[in-house]
Amino acid sequence: MTTKDYTAAVAGLGSMGFGMASSLVKAGITTYGNDISDARVAEFVAAGGKSDPLADVAAQLDCLILVVVNAAQTESILLQDKLLSSMKPGAVIVSCATVPPEFAKAMEAHCQKHQLHYLDAPISGGSVKAAQGKISVLASGTADAFSAAQPALDAMAEKVFTLGDAAGPGSAMKSVNQLLAGVHIAAAAEAITFGLSQGVDAKTTVEVISQCAGTSWMFENRGPHIADGDYTPHSAVDIFVKDLGIVCDIAHSSKFPTPLSAAALQQFLAAAGSGLGREDDSAVAKVYARNGGLNLP
Amino acid sequence: MTTKDYTAAVAGLGSMGFGMASSLVKAGITTYGNDISDARVAEFVAAGGKSDPLADVAAQLDCLILVVVNAAQTESILLQDKLLSSMKPGAVIVSCATVPPEFAKAMEAHCQKHQLHYLDAPISGGSVKAAQGKISVLASGTADAFSAAQPALDAMAEKVFTLGDAAGPGSAMKSVNQLLAGVHIAAAAEAITFGLSQGVDAKTTVEVISQCAGTSWMFENRGPHIADGDYTPHSAVDIFVKDLGIVCDIAHSSKFPTPLSAAALQQFLAAAGSGLGREDDSAVAKVYARNGGLNLP
Repeated sequence: MTTKDYTAAVAGLGSMGFGMASSLVKAGITTYGNDISDARVAEFVAAGGKSDPLADVAAQLDCLILVVVNAAQTESILLQDKLLSSMKPGAVIVSCATVPPEFAKAMEAHCQKHQLHYLDAPISGGSVKAAQGKISVLASGTADAFSAAQPALDAMAEKVFTLGDAAGPGSAMKSVNQLLAGVHIAAAAEAITFGLSQGVDAKTTVEVISQCAGTSWMFENRGPHIADGDYTPHSAVDIFVKDLGIVCDIAHSSKFPTPLSAAALQQFLAAAGSGLGREDDSAVAKVYARNGGLNLP
Repeated sequence: MTTKDYTAAVAGLGSMGFGMASSLVKAGITTYGNDISDARVAEFVAAGGKSDPLADVAAQLDCLILVVVNAAQTESILLQDKLLSSMKPGAVIVSCATVPPEFAKAMEAHCQKHQLHYLDAPISGGSVKAAQGKISVLASGTADAFSAAQPALDAMAEKVFTLGDAAGPGSAMKSVNQLLAGVHIAAAAEAITFGLSQGVDAKTTVEVISQCAGTSWMFENRGPHIADGDYTPHSAVDIFVKDLGIVCDIAHSSKFPTPLSAAALQQFLAAAGSGLGREDDSAVAKVYARNGGLNLP
């Protein structure tokens, strides 16, 4: 199948979904975009997308991509039996939200009842890479699910990790990544503010530690936000309240203790609880500074 | 001064100190080595070093480098007034142990009373880099202290960070680095074992996460130890019991809460308490596995 014959829809035109849907359009794929924000849909139409409601175009879709916030929103779409039964047998659902692996397995079984493939496909990379068609996908699913999603994956992703032949491992690996990402952001904030408490300025800490064994991807990416005092939200505090919450919930269900994730989650909760939920996730540094009586840059 | 006219001594020929002392010898610097282990001293003599007791050679030294374990051992050398008063005015003490910044300031003042310079100079890089003369030094001290230590620094270090014109900031930055290093090792262990609890094998986690935003220097360095089940001690659990202990002590003294460091310290304490203190620090993964009823590779 060429991209010209391929039809896709993207549910959720947020910072990731909009870029991914636009990448499909750029690749020549007929793409329908859905979002609760009319303004966002209008923007997508201006970028070459189509806006017909999902229910009206379901029968034409080769691929339905869900770039929504969580399991509840994913479920609210996939449990519309009328929508799924209108889709062509052999079409694929590509589910990108961060969800528990057990939930992904349940959704796969549900879609298979409708003769639809399901790709457990959490994403990573941020909005800039989404707009460039260069996201990473942590994917698992049947060979048929991968094959049915291939033209869309080619258009949206730079890297597709193939993690297993059924739903579950994709979501599990995303949770592993979010565990580390969340802990590392909180650790960067803890380290930079601890340095401040000892008279070391934030810019020096960021510059020196980036060249030492204490560095991390998140330290190098978020550290400068703290050193510059710029909390423009690239990824919000609320995202890590959600994602570390999912990590801790999954771990709890499995009776697996995760003390660092739990401690980091509490710091993000303190940030969100004190009104910083919509700021950049590096604003967790403000919780540390407040508790230590320090002034941030 | 050429390296030929320069005379140094290294107190502490452990995994770092031996490599640093050997690098001085290779650079043509007359170097005395001291250690509680006679075998270690004999090895150093075989490598071209000298073994006369510090007290006998103090008057010849341009530079005395302390590569001991902690503040107590550093103090046990520097509070020998007879030793310090035998040294030439203008000689320099290079203190490399991880110690609280306040301790470094006190030792600087003490050395200055003896007309000796003091370089607050914690080190990083591991034993392999030490043997190659390529350690990193997180240094602060007066311009005279840096100048007096220069030939030794040139021989031992690849990178010397100049963090301030008095003792304190060097030790503070080392603590910041150890905070992150310790938290990241525990986080790597938490993430890899959490993945195991969700059916993702350790090798896959290490391979995939190393290419994602969840990665860290420590994840990439220690992750393979866990995935390979190889706990040969490159850096032992006991080191992080000590260093995260120093971090938490300093933070406590400054009334600065460090919840992630505290949580990580408890995991290393559990490792040491259950007999793993001499294993590689990545053996903290065994604590996670035990608590979650999992089998590690």
